[in-house]
Amino acid sequence: MIKHALPVTRAADFSAWYQSVIAEADLAEESGVRGCMVIRPWGYGIWERVQRLLDDRIKATGHENCYFPLFIPLSYFEKEAEHVEGFAKEMAVVTHHRLKADATGRLQPDPESKLEEPLVVRPTSETVIGTAFARWVQSWRDLPVLINQWANVVRWEMRTRMFLRTSEFLWQEGHTAHATADEAHEETLRILEVYRSFAEECLALHVVAGEKPENERFPGAVETWSIEAMMGDGKALQAGTSHFLGTNFAHAQNIRFQNADGQLELANTTSWGVSTRMIGAVIMVHGDDDGLCCPPRIAPWQVVIVPMLRDKPEDAAIVDYCRTLQAELAASRALGEPVRALLDLKPVKSTTKRWNWIKKGAPLVIEVGGRDVEGGNVSVIRRDELYREDGKLDARVVARDAFVGEAAGTLEAIQAALHARSTAALKANIVPLSDWAAVEATFAEDQKNPGWVDVAWCRPTGAELDQVVERLKALKLTIRNAPMGQTGEGAVTCIFTGKPAVERVLIGRAY
Amino acid sequence: MIKHALPVTRAADFSAWYQSVIAEADLAEESGVRGCMVIRPWGYGIWERVQRLLDDRIKATGHENCYFPLFIPLSYFEKEAEHVEGFAKEMAVVTHHRLKADATGRLQPDPESKLEEPLVVRPTSETVIGTAFARWVQSWRDLPVLINQWANVVRWEMRTRMFLRTSEFLWQEGHTAHATADEAHEETLRILEVYRSFAEECLALHVVAGEKPENERFPGAVETWSIEAMMGDGKALQAGTSHFLGTNFAHAQNIRFQNADGQLELANTTSWGVSTRMIGAVIMVHGDDDGLCCPPRIAPWQVVIVPMLRDKPEDAAIVDYCRTLQAELAASRALGEPVRALLDLKPVKSTTKRWNWIKKGAPLVIEVGGRDVEGGNVSVIRRDELYREDGKLDARVVARDAFVGEAAGTLEAIQAALHARSTAALKANIVPLSDWAAVEATFAEDQKNPGWVDVAWCRPTGAELDQVVERLKALKLTIRNAPMGQTGEGAVTCIFTGKPAVERVLIGRAY
Repeated sequence: MIKHALPVTRAADFSAWYQSVIAEADLAEESGVRGCMVIRPWGYGIWERVQRLLDDRIKATGHENCYFPLFIPLSYFEKEAEHVEGFAKEMAVVTHHRLKADATGRLQPDPESKLEEPLVVRPTSETVIGTAFARWVQSWRDLPVLINQWANVVRWEMRTRMFLRTSEFLWQEGHTAHATADEAHEETLRILEVYRSFAEECLALHVVAGEKPENERFPGAVETWSIEAMMGDGKALQAGTSHFLGTNFAHAQNIRFQNADGQLELANTTSWGVSTRMIGAVIMVHGDDDGLCCPPRIAPWQVVIVPMLRDKPEDAAIVDYCRTLQAELAASRALGEPVRALLDLKPVKSTTKRWNWIKKGAPLVIEVGGRDVEGGNVSVIRRDELYREDGKLDARVVARDAFVGEAAGTLEAIQAALHARSTAALKANIVPLSDWAAVEATFAEDQKNPGWVDVAWCRPTGAELDQVVERLKALKLTIRNAPMGQTGEGAVTCIFTGKPAVERVLIGRAY
Repeated sequence: MIKHALPVTRAADFSAWYQSVIAEADLAEESGVRGCMVIRPWGYGIWERVQRLLDDRIKATGHENCYFPLFIPLSYFEKEAEHVEGFAKEMAVVTHHRLKADATGRLQPDPESKLEEPLVVRPTSETVIGTAFARWVQSWRDLPVLINQWANVVRWEMRTRMFLRTSEFLWQEGHTAHATADEAHEETLRILEVYRSFAEECLALHVVAGEKPENERFPGAVETWSIEAMMGDGKALQAGTSHFLGTNFAHAQNIRFQNADGQLELANTTSWGVSTRMIGAVIMVHGDDDGLCCPPRIAPWQVVIVPMLRDKPEDAAIVDYCRTLQAELAASRALGEPVRALLDLKPVKSTTKRWNWIKKGAPLVIEVGGRDVEGGNVSVIRRDELYREDGKLDARVVARDAFVGEAAGTLEAIQAALHARSTAALKANIVPLSDWAAVEATFAEDQKNPGWVDVAWCRPTGAELDQVVERLKALKLTIRNAPMGQTGEGAVTCIFTGKPAVERVLIGRAY
C-alpha cells in the first residue's frame, strides 16, 4: 500500500484533505484576521499566472484595465433597489477616519472623526463604475465602453473556507456598456466563452457553460451565465459568471447616450468576474493524496531541480551541472512561453525538498546526484504519474540531453493529461434522470460522491419556481445551470411539474 | 507663437497645468468618493507597465509575491508604539459588518453588527506581515524571508492631489527578515539601488539616492533611504523609500529564530515601497504644455497609427496599409520587448485623434492618408520633438519601410533623450551653498523654481535637529536626503550650527 504524503486522504475526509493540501503545499494560511487569509508565495504565484493568462485574453477581446475606489458611499447603494437587496446584508462599513487612545491607553475610533456618510468596502463595483460610465458616455461614439478591474473585494462571510469563501478575496470584474441589448448580450456570451476556454486550456478544468436559473441570478441582472466545474467529491463549483444587466443598472445610474438620430437612450450593460475561488477549483480537481498537481500553464515553476548534496567536495560539480541544466531549460519554450525552471538551493534536506515540491504540485521534479553527473543523467519525477504499478515512486533515470529535448513535450502532455482526467471525471459523474424519485435516491444520505444529475424542466417562474427551489433545498441541491447549445432534444417532460419541458438543467450540491 | 494643446501652461500655473495634463491625457479623474480617484485606462496602463518592469526586477533579486489581509485588527497597532504614533492618526476604521434600512428607509450601519474589535484598513502592512513572519521564522534555515506585495492602502488625507496624495493608493510593499543586521542593511541598499536604476532606466527620471534625516524616518525605522526626483517646478518628490528596521519590529512582533548555535535571536527586518506617486513624477518631469510625454518603456502604446479616413471608398486601402504596418511593428522589438503598436480605428475625427495621442504622450504618432499609401510613406510625429524651429508641428513624411526599420531605434532614442533632459534639469537646479543667508535668498518669495540647495551639515540630533527643522519649515523647506557615495569632501562647516560638518544634504520644497 502506498504511503501518501498528506496526513489525510480524499476518500477519508474530503474537507480535511482540502485544508491539508492548502497547508502542505504552502498555498495559504489563516491570517489571524477574521475571514481573511494570507496567500503564500506558491498560492500567489498560481494567482499571478491566472492573472497573466486571463488578462491577456481579456485584453485580446478589446478590454482595458482601470482602477476604481475601494470605498463606495452608502447612498450609491440606495439607487439600485434590487441590487441592494442582494448585497446590502453583509459588508464592511467604514465609519471613522482616525484612531485615538482612550483613558486606559487603548486605541479606539476617535468619535470626532465620525464620517458624515459611512463608506462601504466594495463587495463588487457596479455602482461606482456605473457612476463613472454615466460621466464617460454621452454619444453613441463613446460606446462600447469595455473595462476590467483587478481588485480586492469584501463580503462579510460568517463561515469561511480558504480560497472558496473568504471575507476579502481577489478577483477581476469586467464592466461594459453598449448601445444595444444585442451587443451587450453578445458581450455577455463572448466573456463566458473567454472564461470557458481559459478554464479548459489554462486550468485544465472541464467546465459546463450555461445559464443560471432565475433564482440564482446576480441581483439586478436580466440573465446570469456561469461556468460550473465538478470537484473531486462530485460537488459543483461556480468558477466564473457573466451577467447581462439590460438597462437595469443604466437606469439606476443614468447611463444615457445620444444615438445616431440624436435621441437619448439608456445604455445596456454587462458585468462578469472570476476570483481566487478558481484556485480552490484547481486544488479540488487536480489535487490527490500527495498534494496539489499543478497544471503546467499555471505552475509558478514548471520544472524544479533538486541537487542531492552531501556536504562533500563533489557538491560543487553537482550544482554546476544543475545550473547548466536550469539555463538550458529556461532557454527552451513550452506551451507558448519560456519554460519556468527553478534550481532549489535552499539549505533543506534533499528528500524533504523532493516531497515539498511533490506536495506543491510542480509538474516535473528533477533530482541530480553524484552518480547522475557521472553518467550524464537526471532522475525525473512526473507529478501526474507519481507511482509505478508496484506502488513505488516513479523516479526515472533519463539521459540529461534527452530530458532537455523532451521537457517541453512532457509539460504539454501533462497539461493535456490533467484536462483529459477532468473531462472523464465530469462525464462519469453526470447522470441523466427523468423522475424525481430517482433524484432523491441519487442524493440519499448514504450516497458518496453522487455527482450531478441532468434533468428536463419547464423553466418555471414565480411561486412555481419557489416550490422547485424548496424541494431541491431539502436535499441540499441547487440548479447549477442550463448548459449552452441545447438542441431541445431530451427535454420532454418537466421533472418537477410534469408540464412540457423547455430545456435540460444540471443539478448538484455545490460549494 | 505656438498654440499649445493644454488650456494652461507650466509657466502660468504649474499646479493647474498638472491637473490639466491628468484630465486631457485621460489619466485619472475624481471619483466622487472623497480622496479617491478613478485611474483611467491610459493612466492604469502606465501603472501596469511600472508593475511589470519593477516586479521583474524585484523577483530577479530573489523576492516572491504574497497577499496579506486588507484589514488589520486594532490591537496589532498597539504592539509597536513608535509606529502607531506615526500612523495612528488618519486611517479608515471599519466598525460594522452589515447595513440596515432605518425607519425612513435609508441605509445605515446595523447597530447589531458592531465589531467587537474595530478593523483598520491597512495604511501599510508591517504589523500584519510581521505577525506572519513570526509564524514562518523558527530557525536560521528559514531566513532570509524575502516578500513583496502589490496592494491598495489607505491613509486618510485631508488635502488630496491626484497620484501624489490620495486617500487610497496603489503600491508595492516589500518586507524582509534576515539573520543579521548586516544582511538586512545590505538588503535595504540593494532595494534602493533597484528603485534608483528602475527610475533611471524605465521612467527616465534622474533621481538622487540617499539617506533621509532622522526626522523624516519611517515610524519605527533605524534608517530610511529614498530616491528623490526633481519636478518641473523645482520641487522634490520622494519617489521610493527603503527602510532598515533593525530589530524594532521583530521585537514588537516576536520574530525570533534559533541560530546555528541553538540560541534564540531577534531577526532584523526591512520594508520598502513605491506607489502610484511615481506616475505623478513622470507627469511633472516629462510633461510639457502639450500634455504628457511618456517614456517608451512605460508607454502602454509606443506607436499609435492614425488612419486619415474620409468616409470614401479609398478608406479601405488606407486601413489595410495601416494594418500591415501595425503587424510589422508588433513583430519587431525595442528596448528588449515587442513593440506595442496600436491602430486607432475609433469613430473620431483624425485630427482630434492626433491631438488626443499627443496629449496622452504616445512616443510616436503615425498618420496615414491616401497620399501616403500611394507614395509608400507614413507621416511621423515624435512626441519629444513636437515642433520645428518655425513653431509648426513637426510631422515628417518618411518612407514606410525606412520607418519600420528605424522605429525600434527611434523609441530607444526617445527613452534616452527624456532621461538626458531629466538629468540636465536636475543638475541645472541644484545649487551648492555655504551660508544660511544664501539659502534664505534662494527660497525668497519672489524666486520662481528655486530648485534644491546642497549644503553641509553636522547631522544634529534631538533639540538641535528640531531647531533646524523649524528654521527650514519657516521657508517651507525639508531636507530631502544625504546623497549616497559622499567622499566627505566639501563637508566642512555645518550651515546650521557652525560645527564641523559630516556630510552634505539636499534641501528643497517638496510634494
